[in-house]
Amino acid sequence: MSQNTLEYVLANRIQGLDTSAIRKAFELAGSLKNPINLSIGQPHFPCPANIIEAGCKALKDGKTAYTLTGGIPELRSALAEKYKTTNGISYATPERILVTSGISSAFLLLFNALLNEGDECLVVTPHFLMYPAYIKIYGGKMNTVHQSFEPEDLKDFSNKKLKIIIYSSPSNPTGKILSRKQLEALAELAEKTGAYLISDEIYELFDYDKKFISAGSFYEKTITLSGFSKTYSMTGLRLSSILAPEPITKALTTLQQYTIVCAPSVTQWMGLEALKTDMSSYIADYKEKRDFVYDSLKDHYEVEKSEGAFYFFIKIKEKDDDFILRAIKEKELILVPGYIFADSKNYIRISFASEWDNLKKGISALVALA
Amino acid sequence: MSQNTLEYVLANRIQGLDTSAIRKAFELAGSLKNPINLSIGQPHFPCPANIIEAGCKALKDGKTAYTLTGGIPELRSALAEKYKTTNGISYATPERILVTSGISSAFLLLFNALLNEGDECLVVTPHFLMYPAYIKIYGGKMNTVHQSFEPEDLKDFSNKKLKIIIYSSPSNPTGKILSRKQLEALAELAEKTGAYLISDEIYELFDYDKKFISAGSFYEKTITLSGFSKTYSMTGLRLSSILAPEPITKALTTLQQYTIVCAPSVTQWMGLEALKTDMSSYIADYKEKRDFVYDSLKDHYEVEKSEGAFYFFIKIKEKDDDFILRAIKEKELILVPGYIFADSKNYIRISFASEWDNLKKGISALVALA
Repeated sequence: MSQNTLEYVLANRIQGLDTSAIRKAFELAGSLKNPINLSIGQPHFPCPANIIEAGCKALKDGKTAYTLTGGIPELRSALAEKYKTTNGISYATPERILVTSGISSAFLLLFNALLNEGDECLVVTPHFLMYPAYIKIYGGKMNTVHQSFEPEDLKDFSNKKLKIIIYSSPSNPTGKILSRKQLEALAELAEKTGAYLISDEIYELFDYDKKFISAGSFYEKTITLSGFSKTYSMTGLRLSSILAPEPITKALTTLQQYTIVCAPSVTQWMGLEALKTDMSSYIADYKEKRDFVYDSLKDHYEVEKSEGAFYFFIKIKEKDDDFILRAIKEKELILVPGYIFADSKNYIRISFASEWDNLKKGISALVALA
Repeated sequence: MSQNTLEYVLANRIQGLDTSAIRKAFELAGSLKNPINLSIGQPHFPCPANIIEAGCKALKDGKTAYTLTGGIPELRSALAEKYKTTNGISYATPERILVTSGISSAFLLLFNALLNEGDECLVVTPHFLMYPAYIKIYGGKMNTVHQSFEPEDLKDFSNKKLKIIIYSSPSNPTGKILSRKQLEALAELAEKTGAYLISDEIYELFDYDKKFISAGSFYEKTITLSGFSKTYSMTGLRLSSILAPEPITKALTTLQQYTIVCAPSVTQWMGLEALKTDMSSYIADYKEKRDFVYDSLKDHYEVEKSEGAFYFFIKIKEKDDDFILRAIKEKELILVPGYIFADSKNYIRISFASEWDNLKKGISALVALA
């Protein structure tokens, strides 16, 4: 039987899922001799040594078996404490926390558990590229509101039967941190419509002007997503947590038992050590880089100063795909097109999670391309 | 806003998912002083030291970032070689292999990608308890055929529009290894109906009489699932692989990019070392235990000799829940009820993945309970 003569019938829910845009950029990048890379979505620094040590210790202590579905009790307790002290979420308890395998797994559990076919979702845009994918997979309908919204802009949605409201703050791809006024308006909308408010806070520590606020600190029904991947440079180790009202945490835990089973055991012990680790020098380095990028670009591009994460979302005068191709050809510069994050083809995303040398070269190249 | 006054509306697809049966057994177990435990679904031996070392080395080498979605190339190549030499699957290539985060993640990807609402599935029963859960989550309809089936018993299904045929061999919960004749009949049915044949081979190495055959060795469209969890005692580290026709592997890889992202990086390097590790002494130990259990029980219970995995599925004269409660109360013996694996309430599952001392006590207790 030749494989080529077969028709492989996939489920409707995954038809049209496509990663070709990002792949194309990476393939092009692969052909370059000395690329300047401003496309990377993870920290450039190594995972701190004390966290690595904790991983080795866990391995040598034989922590290789399944953990409890919800996570090791030590980590859930430490996370409850973190939510209380760092995020101002007074009601955080271990029982409300599910440890899972990266923020993507958190999305998988949440959209799987909460979204029915046809349910309406509201996404603050520009948005993380996975949100539309999840809404599509689970049959929802996507509405958007721009991150610069005023509370009154949400009125249009208050009569919709919303099921999920989701945003990332600090934002990937823009670095925007939503204000208290905006978060309160989203919480009010969630309360009025009965929607779940999902606050994706994976970049919370990358907060350069102390603007970041957890919606959970004033709205108890918030579903708060926190990650270890970006903060501690352990993206490949797959660890994150969900703080939610207890009935939700319970449902997600049941679903996790049938899907993820548990977050990787060794990684959970690393997470426990990570929560004790002072990352302020790393953040200070990124703040300096944020300032450098803004000061270098502001006279050449229409760009808002990033407040968090490690991205700038930059307006360009041509189509993003064309600009990206030109950047590769003329400057060996690798960028990410904006259209995967927004309903517009006039933006690119750059990352300043980079060594100084690469960053300076990249920004010079961008200035020359303006 | 009090949390208790809220109604938390979950998606229909996860309504009724329940883990209370197993949880109840574990809770009861938790109250015992000196329990004898024959319920454990993972090896009792530690993960071999060379694999632990490989994990530490990967950590110290800074392998903490995202890997390629499909897995590190070194592991995919080693797996292709394993499939060729160990499983007799001549067409295995790295391009057909997706490294993922445990067999449960493989199910998640497969059922998500392949099953539409209303699609018919055929499950060889007694079956792994997650199959019905996945079929339910993704809206399929479940049909079963008993593991003792003859090829002609499949006739009833040949006019159905089957989408998925799935079995585990060696079987959890029975230890049964499907014969070549049975596998050929399932492959023929898959070919005739256009169904995907999913062969869950997580227990492949636990094959005490050299009976195990990979369906993929003679049917190229087989989707073969292989795990590291049980073989190398690393259930908490979340690593498995899927070998499938390339279009399927490609679709699953795209879906993985949006869900699992990648298998844990460090675990992948451990998997590479694991494939070089000789486990024959561990298997010999389990074979001896298998023989001991069978010889001890065969005159007291209606029981078939387990051929693989590390389970016996034992017929009892009372309702499984009653028997299990009696075992706990009279003997402090922990068992798993059969009804979570089969449409019958007259079986229990025991695991012989245990130290001799615990196993001998447990079997004596079982004999006394007969």
